Amino acid sequence: MAEINSNYKKLAAGYLFPEIARRTREFQEKNPEMILKKLGIGNTTEALTPAVVSGLIKGVNNLADPATYSGYGDEQGNTNLRQALSDYYSSKGIALSRSDFFISDGAKPDSSNIQSIFSSDSIVAVQDPAYPVYVDSNVITGRAGNYSVEKGEYDGLVYMQCTEENGFFPELPKNKVDLIYLCSPNNPTGAVATHEQLKKFVDYAKENKAVIIFDAAYSEYISDKDLPRSIFEIEGAKECALEINSLSKFAGFTGVRLGWTVVPEELVVEGTEPGEIRNLWNRRQSTFFNGASNIVQEGAMTVFSEAGLKESRELVNFYMENAKIIMNGVKDLGITAYGGVNAPYVWIKTPEGTSSWDFFDKLLSETGVIGTPGSGFGPGGEGFFRLSAFGHREDIEAAMESIKENLKL
Amino acid sequence: MAEINSNYKKLAAGYLFPEIARRTREFQEKNPEMILKKLGIGNTTEALTPAVVSGLIKGVNNLADPATYSGYGDEQGNTNLRQALSDYYSSKGIALSRSDFFISDGAKPDSSNIQSIFSSDSIVAVQDPAYPVYVDSNVITGRAGNYSVEKGEYDGLVYMQCTEENGFFPELPKNKVDLIYLCSPNNPTGAVATHEQLKKFVDYAKENKAVIIFDAAYSEYISDKDLPRSIFEIEGAKECALEINSLSKFAGFTGVRLGWTVVPEELVVEGTEPGEIRNLWNRRQSTFFNGASNIVQEGAMTVFSEAGLKESRELVNFYMENAKIIMNGVKDLGITAYGGVNAPYVWIKTPEGTSSWDFFDKLLSETGVIGTPGSGFGPGGEGFFRLSAFGHREDIEAAMESIKENLKL
Repeated sequence: MAEINSNYKKLAAGYLFPEIARRTREFQEKNPEMILKKLGIGNTTEALTPAVVSGLIKGVNNLADPATYSGYGDEQGNTNLRQALSDYYSSKGIALSRSDFFISDGAKPDSSNIQSIFSSDSIVAVQDPAYPVYVDSNVITGRAGNYSVEKGEYDGLVYMQCTEENGFFPELPKNKVDLIYLCSPNNPTGAVATHEQLKKFVDYAKENKAVIIFDAAYSEYISDKDLPRSIFEIEGAKECALEINSLSKFAGFTGVRLGWTVVPEELVVEGTEPGEIRNLWNRRQSTFFNGASNIVQEGAMTVFSEAGLKESRELVNFYMENAKIIMNGVKDLGITAYGGVNAPYVWIKTPEGTSSWDFFDKLLSETGVIGTPGSGFGPGGEGFFRLSAFGHREDIEAAMESIKENLKL
Repeated sequence: MAEINSNYKKLAAGYLFPEIARRTREFQEKNPEMILKKLGIGNTTEALTPAVVSGLIKGVNNLADPATYSGYGDEQGNTNLRQALSDYYSSKGIALSRSDFFISDGAKPDSSNIQSIFSSDSIVAVQDPAYPVYVDSNVITGRAGNYSVEKGEYDGLVYMQCTEENGFFPELPKNKVDLIYLCSPNNPTGAVATHEQLKKFVDYAKENKAVIIFDAAYSEYISDKDLPRSIFEIEGAKECALEINSLSKFAGFTGVRLGWTVVPEELVVEGTEPGEIRNLWNRRQSTFFNGASNIVQEGAMTVFSEAGLKESRELVNFYMENAKIIMNGVKDLGITAYGGVNAPYVWIKTPEGTSSWDFFDKLLSETGVIGTPGSGFGPGGEGFFRLSAFGHREDIEAAMESIKENLKL
């Protein structure tokens, strides 16, 4: 008698972005004349750059010719791409061997799957607010306990508050935890952790034998040279942290699909030797995954060429110019806003007494602008709202114009 | 204090194909002059067909143009591709709505991940021998119990023997089981289940409220019109089965990466309403997956065009001609062999008293041919050996020539 995994019933609500899509669809059906301006999901909008396009075309053409056709590749990714990543980190002063890199089809799969290699009774700490996938993947695999509607929290998780007061970077957990998800530049708050802030967590992790799962998906959006772009810039991090990243936001690969996870050989947990955790992730990927598309990997290679890096950085600059337009727009209206400087997200405070979802509905109905309710990222996001800088320039400008003209504050 | 998921320690051995790669590499290093002929892993070797290449190029070009660029798609896959799949099944007399189809990056991820939606104490039945992923994914997620080296079995799994006597299709489990993995055409034995054989399992599943996980990855290799290509050809299957398939073997997508899982709305288990299981898989994919590459989905669309289907079928015929050459070659040597008619695998009986791995080493050292040891697919595979029909014609011919000339029987 088959039964379902009852953990799914513990999920608090529909996954955030499908829920936004549903509300938007309903609104559009009732208001077909309204032109929607989407600053919700962090979805890239600009064309792939010429270098990347040529790499992808080469990838396709390779498969069209029996002499260069390839089938299954290594589950860990192509050796040359892993080497290119190792070289890229090296160019930033971080020494990691190519065997520490595991290519995947994106940061979302990796950040949801990484928990698989750790004990099912691990105590998990998440920033609050945080990218919902960290929580939901641990709910489904049974580490989160039960959801309390009043608190908006799972009783089995440790929530690390990210507030205006602490600059949206949390204090260390008061109790011992085993797995710590950190995201910097942060989605959704746009806050970027300093060396000192990360150092505290690395020291905590080493002392408590915890593992930091560091999501660096927005690292290329950091322009301030004093801010760390990788957890491995922090002394001692290789022994207690792994890092997840992707080309989604750097090179417009949201739909193309390519990410990677760095598991340093040095990373150890209770009872393991160096290399053992890395082997576990290797084993996990070899069993549940069959490698990223060889076409996509060929395209990814070109991102790390001189032309590819230059073009990708221009793409990042374009989106960061959008962020500036959003920041200036909301500040002109007297709205309190954070982020948006070294991150493509603007984190605004909703007007006094307005809940995040009420503000979502208000913004949508009054201005046609779609954003993301802060509470969708956890209870600590209540009273906040995320605007994404990913969009065509004219749409960003139209959105800010509509907010300026139509939002009733 | 973080700890590892101790289930990984229960895995019996390295995943089969990496182990073959390791032994092969070691042999080649010691014998650099030997030309290896790979009939091991079921990896396609022929170029993508013109229709598919044009679809993939279109997919890349779409992303090069801001007017047609797309980022994140639906986690479930593009609507038009889901519709094309629904239409394709419909053309074979199987009515399924496009909402029943979930596009993924391959059959391996789906067949390893599908267990996530079922209870962790589900009793799992597998064919013995079977594709190792069914077992390993359940070991890692804690359903398989402990491994006995003597028996070569996990004490928590139900092994359904596939032997010469039963034509490599199992009897019904004697005890109640909850999840039943069936693969037809079978990897590794090449056996194809009849309507009657599948009907028995469907009746069992309905009576015992079990779920059949049907792996149809080789369905396009069936030429015999009387054999079922989908579990959904069997009356009542929609209420008790889901089906996994991919373009890897049909259209040479092993490295391109595209598969799908069909979860019919009608599928129910204890305590669920119609549609609920389908929603669970939807929720699983929305949390752990971010959609197949939009480039790859564009290429997949063309497989279901008139030209694409014609070309893909020619590709299948090419590999099946290889299968015929292998079958004839081994039979000429007096070796007992199965499969190879409606499936791209030839399942040979190793010479009296030779274990599967010993035969692997013997075949490699004497002939340079790489195959797959039957015992790698479970204890029931001991004494057998798989030869794959995926290869260039000249390599298949050279392999059979070398076996004929050099194998000491």
